[in-house]
Amino acid sequence: MKLKNYLAPDATAADKRLTVLCLRCESLLYLRLFKLKKENALKYSKTLTEHLKNSYNNSQAPSPGLGSKAVGMPSPVSPKLSPGNSGNYSSGASSASASGSSVTIPQKIHQMAASYVQVTSNFLYATEIWDQAEQLSKEQKEFFAELDKVMGPLIFNASIMTDLVRYTRQGLHWLRQDAKLIS
Amino acid sequence: MKLKNYLAPDATAADKRLTVLCLRCESLLYLRLFKLKKENALKYSKTLTEHLKNSYNNSQAPSPGLGSKAVGMPSPVSPKLSPGNSGNYSSGASSASASGSSVTIPQKIHQMAASYVQVTSNFLYATEIWDQAEQLSKEQKEFFAELDKVMGPLIFNASIMTDLVRYTRQGLHWLRQDAKLIS
Repeated sequence: MKLKNYLAPDATAADKRLTVLCLRCESLLYLRLFKLKKENALKYSKTLTEHLKNSYNNSQAPSPGLGSKAVGMPSPVSPKLSPGNSGNYSSGASSASASGSSVTIPQKIHQMAASYVQVTSNFLYATEIWDQAEQLSKEQKEFFAELDKVMGPLIFNASIMTDLVRYTRQGLHWLRQDAKLIS
Repeated sequence: MKLKNYLAPDATAADKRLTVLCLRCESLLYLRLFKLKKENALKYSKTLTEHLKNSYNNSQAPSPGLGSKAVGMPSPVSPKLSPGNSGNYSSGASSASASGSSVTIPQKIHQMAASYVQVTSNFLYATEIWDQAEQLSKEQKEFFAELDKVMGPLIFNASIMTDLVRYTRQGLHWLRQDAKLIS
């Protein structure tokens, strides 16, 4: 059995079934990667939210005329009015200094943002791929209804790795049987 | 009925059941908030990953001796070697310039990071609260097994808002009956 593009004009039911099994495995593995680092992500989320709120307030304070429409647009360099924000670019303080169209942040926050994006991306991929599998499985309702009945359905956020292995193994077994690769 | 702290010594079974219903509502509402902005989060994730990768490479390039242990620690200011990175702090270029313990990034990227953290936080809270509800529902197995049987179980990432309303309404109905508030 080979994984063919399920969108190809000659994709068979078996190709689509195999794709659904692969997507579900991929999704739950991404979810697992996310869960392994979830505690960190929660901590980072709090720190980053706090930091970004402060830095947004600071960067907005000197130019109260800038509404949300100005977000991402270059703004004229304006003198810093708040005491903690007087051009002290490399102090490592926890507030950012906006200067024209760029913002200076502590390296620690930058690093934390990088980790946060990496960890949470795993989750984003997991949901995206899961939804893709759900969509495609609807074209193969009977096969997956039967598989769910025999093995118990796979559930995003609740299934454990052994469930995934058992489910996938049974699905592959049936696909091989249908293809007369085994009896 | 009032929501009491389920950890309180005098918390009853009904208090715990009500808490589980509340937590599941809260979780699925956070998840919904996330899903409404998921497409943006996916786009931001790609842009931010690309940006952070580049800026990390740039900030590491001038000081190859700095390993991962130096992350978040102030590093000595080092001359920038790459041509596109010569102290041009407010150019709005898509690469960050590391200077000592701070990093300069385009305001657009900063803004995008803020949106990304906001959207993905909703998901983090959703999973966290869902897991909390799962844990607590194990103490009230019979009640929720019965509710799942009658209404169909709520499923993270798959339940729709009307399922949530129906499920919660039925659960509240039983809780009121048990409390003899209605017959």
